[in-house]
Amino acid sequence: MGGPLVSTVPLRPVTEVRAVKVRPDRAVELPERLATEEPLEIRAAGPAQPSEPVAVTMRTPGADFELASGFLVSEGLASAGDVAAVGYCESAAPEHRFNTVTVSLRVPWVPPDVGRAFVATSSCGVCGKAGIDQVELACPVVGPTPPIPASVLADLPDKLRSAQRVFDRTGGLHAAGRFAGDGTLLCAREDVGRHNAVDKVIGERVLATAAGRPVEDGWILMVSGRVSFEIVQKAAMARFAVIAAVSAPSSLAVAAADRLGITVAGFVRGRTYTVYSHPERLDLSA
Amino acid sequence: MGGPLVSTVPLRPVTEVRAVKVRPDRAVELPERLATEEPLEIRAAGPAQPSEPVAVTMRTPGADFELASGFLVSEGLASAGDVAAVGYCESAAPEHRFNTVTVSLRVPWVPPDVGRAFVATSSCGVCGKAGIDQVELACPVVGPTPPIPASVLADLPDKLRSAQRVFDRTGGLHAAGRFAGDGTLLCAREDVGRHNAVDKVIGERVLATAAGRPVEDGWILMVSGRVSFEIVQKAAMARFAVIAAVSAPSSLAVAAADRLGITVAGFVRGRTYTVYSHPERLDLSA
Repeated sequence: MGGPLVSTVPLRPVTEVRAVKVRPDRAVELPERLATEEPLEIRAAGPAQPSEPVAVTMRTPGADFELASGFLVSEGLASAGDVAAVGYCESAAPEHRFNTVTVSLRVPWVPPDVGRAFVATSSCGVCGKAGIDQVELACPVVGPTPPIPASVLADLPDKLRSAQRVFDRTGGLHAAGRFAGDGTLLCAREDVGRHNAVDKVIGERVLATAAGRPVEDGWILMVSGRVSFEIVQKAAMARFAVIAAVSAPSSLAVAAADRLGITVAGFVRGRTYTVYSHPERLDLSA
Repeated sequence: MGGPLVSTVPLRPVTEVRAVKVRPDRAVELPERLATEEPLEIRAAGPAQPSEPVAVTMRTPGADFELASGFLVSEGLASAGDVAAVGYCESAAPEHRFNTVTVSLRVPWVPPDVGRAFVATSSCGVCGKAGIDQVELACPVVGPTPPIPASVLADLPDKLRSAQRVFDRTGGLHAAGRFAGDGTLLCAREDVGRHNAVDKVIGERVLATAAGRPVEDGWILMVSGRVSFEIVQKAAMARFAVIAAVSAPSSLAVAAADRLGITVAGFVRGRTYTVYSHPERLDLSA
């Protein structure tokens, strides 16, 4: 058990390669930068329990401890207050050490049902439901929020984009951000997987809580891509009231958001957007 | 056992909803179309065996039989020639019937190791590897191909885009296409999940083979989004020699492609692209 709550980043989020740029008139070899993709094994342990594997996800290194903690919470496997410590696996083989993270809980770790195999990947969220009946996690309905001026959502993409440091260097990453009701950016994270970026954002708050740091209230989630059912599910588990996205939601995402009390805004770009569920959270006169 | 090899599509790929379009000056309610997202349980059975669940993936209905067959092949769980028949699950509850597909094999179905839990989702491919050591499937190295004129790859995005019928109506889907070496489009499929779109394209060939239909040789795969490790893995299992993508590959995707003999071209847009592995398959003078 033990380990720090803030992960250093032993693996780099950007990988340098040589590539050939092909134009209609010529081809030139040049250095290029790629977003790093590496597997992360997430493990969990209760007090005096040996750790057990929970999931393997393909992720961009960085914020690994947030990713692991956020995953456990967003998948309903642990409560935010349960996290005691997070650490890389000292006993793993050297080449795997920084791809294995153990979340130590204050409460006994109870593995999910055998029928629910929790194996996550890059942009994967339904991981762990072996059958269709098990797809939908029990998510509490989100309560009322102060009215949000309509212009607040229109401003989010630029704010999130400006916080995307790895994207600027590689052009190939998803991003997620947590915002306050007035549009203040509180946390932004990047990953090759949209779901991982969301889990990192959720985990940031989990680790702050675990460390006793103050956490500013932020219940708007912005994602750079589309909104799938799983994004809604994760947002609901983390008590987000609004999901804004640059691209489209799916039918199931909107159906779930409608039932869970979550506002979904899609195609947020160029100062316009489309609201698919619970528009009453927005002040459309502002 | 039994069932047709071509799936009718009982669930619609597009879902109609009411939404609120918010512009800086006004908000109006209007009808909108969303890409349908529904879970699909993939089951497998050998001769005289009861079917067993293999995976649940969140997919856009349509080409369900191709998706299920393609998944089994691209994940290394079955060979293309093993598929005897595919059908919806007659015994499932009515609301789940068209979300459950059973692939009947000519050979006994051997479930993956218990340690490898094959649960897939929308954009998920590493499903089924419980540990990091199990992430990499054994993929044969792809052999030589006739030289591909450089301009062939530059033409692919427009060809794939023009085949995206659901995207035109919803703006929210990934696409994958199989192309011949001269750039002829042989098969295009769409899905909310990039991996599903690839599996559908792979499954189209599997089902054609199973039905004894002629299959044109096509070993170029084009995807609408990014190239992850799993896309390379699936492409390798289906013997693609070239992967072209509108967006960026990840570091692991390029490393895998380099090892497996696959050419990866990224950022294929506006008549230019970048080649990250095995440029020798291209005729850069053409």
